[in-house]
Amino acid sequence: LNNWQVVDQHHLLKLFTFPDFKSALAFVNQIGVLAEEENHHPNINFTWGKVEVSIWTHKIEGLHENDFIFASKIDAITT
Amino acid sequence: LNNWQVVDQHHLLKLFTFPDFKSALAFVNQIGVLAEEENHHPNINFTWGKVEVSIWTHKIEGLHENDFIFASKIDAITT
Repeated sequence: LNNWQVVDQHHLLKLFTFPDFKSALAFVNQIGVLAEEENHHPNINFTWGKVEVSIWTHKIEGLHENDFIFASKIDAITT
Repeated sequence: LNNWQVVDQHHLLKLFTFPDFKSALAFVNQIGVLAEEENHHPNINFTWGKVEVSIWTHKIEGLHENDFIFASKIDAITT
């Protein structure tokens, strides 16, 4: 994983930056497709040029192997 | 305006709820269209079934009349 932070031993967090609002929103939609495919739904906090993604497993209120796999798939979108 | 909170005299905040991820994301995209049309870009924090929208004017780091107008336009999307 690239630059994901483990926060409070509870979730993975990463900030992605973009040159404008449109490309940030496009990335949000790509994450949305992945989330529906995997039935794993992150928290997405975004605004002009910035998308902050948080991932955890709600059932255990913490981190599971699947969260790390999901994070790597999000990284794969951007490369 | 319907159920928007003024937070710290800095931004307007409202939580919208939805029955699933897909409809939350659809709403996010409708806000995105409006944001680009108005060249006014809110902060959107969302996850499965929830979309939290924050609006303020970056230039003044606070609230301007336009923020209230933008909030009412977001309300209009949902009705």
